[in-house]
Amino acid sequence: MQLIQFGPLGKEKPGLLTAGGVRKDLSSVVERYDRDFFQAGGLARLAELAGSLDSYPDVPEAVRWGAPIARPGKVICVGLNYADHAKESGMAIPEEPIIFFKGTNTVVGPYDEVLIPRKSEKTDWEVELGVVIGKEARYLDSASEAAACIAGYCISNDVSERHFQLERGGQWVKGKSCDTFNPLGPFMATTDEIADVSDLAMTLEVNGERMQTGNTKTMIFDPCFVIHYLSQFMTLEAGDLISTGTPPGVGLGLKPPRFLKAGDVMTLSIAGLGEQRQVCKDA
Amino acid sequence: MQLIQFGPLGKEKPGLLTAGGVRKDLSSVVERYDRDFFQAGGLARLAELAGSLDSYPDVPEAVRWGAPIARPGKVICVGLNYADHAKESGMAIPEEPIIFFKGTNTVVGPYDEVLIPRKSEKTDWEVELGVVIGKEARYLDSASEAAACIAGYCISNDVSERHFQLERGGQWVKGKSCDTFNPLGPFMATTDEIADVSDLAMTLEVNGERMQTGNTKTMIFDPCFVIHYLSQFMTLEAGDLISTGTPPGVGLGLKPPRFLKAGDVMTLSIAGLGEQRQVCKDA
Repeated sequence: MQLIQFGPLGKEKPGLLTAGGVRKDLSSVVERYDRDFFQAGGLARLAELAGSLDSYPDVPEAVRWGAPIARPGKVICVGLNYADHAKESGMAIPEEPIIFFKGTNTVVGPYDEVLIPRKSEKTDWEVELGVVIGKEARYLDSASEAAACIAGYCISNDVSERHFQLERGGQWVKGKSCDTFNPLGPFMATTDEIADVSDLAMTLEVNGERMQTGNTKTMIFDPCFVIHYLSQFMTLEAGDLISTGTPPGVGLGLKPPRFLKAGDVMTLSIAGLGEQRQVCKDA
Repeated sequence: MQLIQFGPLGKEKPGLLTAGGVRKDLSSVVERYDRDFFQAGGLARLAELAGSLDSYPDVPEAVRWGAPIARPGKVICVGLNYADHAKESGMAIPEEPIIFFKGTNTVVGPYDEVLIPRKSEKTDWEVELGVVIGKEARYLDSASEAAACIAGYCISNDVSERHFQLERGGQWVKGKSCDTFNPLGPFMATTDEIADVSDLAMTLEVNGERMQTGNTKTMIFDPCFVIHYLSQFMTLEAGDLISTGTPPGVGLGLKPPRFLKAGDVMTLSIAGLGEQRQVCKDA
């Protein structure tokens, strides 16, 4: 299934995307795709509805695409998780996952504007595989146990202000948590839709120029490893989002570096997960 | 006013503490102390009720004290924000606030057990002044504007696993986001209750032995400065929590260092904000 949400920011309603690409409004039977929904086994209930989607209303085309899940309890990111990206950056491959958080109010829809923060010097892009937690995970015994804790996958743009992140003292959150810095979607594909999560092509273009070309096969710590690992430190709750790192080609890594400005257009794709498009605008 | 919540974790109900220390159940008129409550001016509505508290039921003594606010949208922490703590640590005073996040599901009640994580080597304490945001703050023009964005203050114990935080690669979140790592309360005092937030004595004891003795007067960046500063990077939402840093005396700073083990009892106090007490237990 391909889960979508639609409607104004913060008031999104849930739906499903049909095989033909039509958005169906399921708000009469589901409140939202949040922690309670996933933890209570909502995906199984959705699967029962998926056979009779015709009986639900279409979402009018003009209605905004929201992020495919409700605001997560946590937005957890993995840093430097692609071998080719680490090599490009001249960095050693990390011995264990590098973890940081983004503010959860950064999550926006896949086609929303991305705001360049005031006084930004270095707003940058990062196409990433987003993993949505489907079931609480705490002290998992093994990575193989983690598979059952995944609800699905989506494209996640981990927008980052490098000056705020790296040159303003301390930790990275200042450059990771600006408004609109996490476009998500257009849909969340349930795990059965993705035959091999370790072989998904990923692209990101700015104004039609290819900047990132990657594949999840060069990911260092795969989603199940990351979930098992994280569960040793913190409880992952249903509806939490993990962005699993970015392949080569971010603006900071270019020679010379290149960053976003108002009017720039980002387009992102991951095989099987659709395409995002954001226009940049000054905050 | 002194806001409290009570009842089982995750299902807390709201109330007020009377001048005589009695917990009053206001769940018949308020749903919870969350973003919507504060943003919609709920404190003004509460002030109207505060005159007729006698007409509301008492909360039975045996009922658990919850954190005084609903789970925040963000838990933001300021690192190294006390001049005497920086000096003790041999660290330079930061030029601008050091900011990090804790997982919001770390928030528990003031008397709940604190779980020592599995494989923990260095679980540590940090008494801090918690600041609750009362009104959305985004690109504030000045620190003086920030005062109107504060709902109130409470004690926040920023429990930290130093091995996870500092010796497991990357950012600090791994050591800051373990279950139960943010006892909050017992109550949130509204700003009118605190005559001078820059002169509050703070203490933390472990098994009755004084470990931290501080005062907010040695705080480097005061709450209004921090709120104005943060609002340049991210939108602070009503109900968000900011823990503003810890004074000298954490376990990591002792010679030799000293850390928590199952059975240890922490007691924390801040002038005007009451007292917390947690027993440590193995996760």
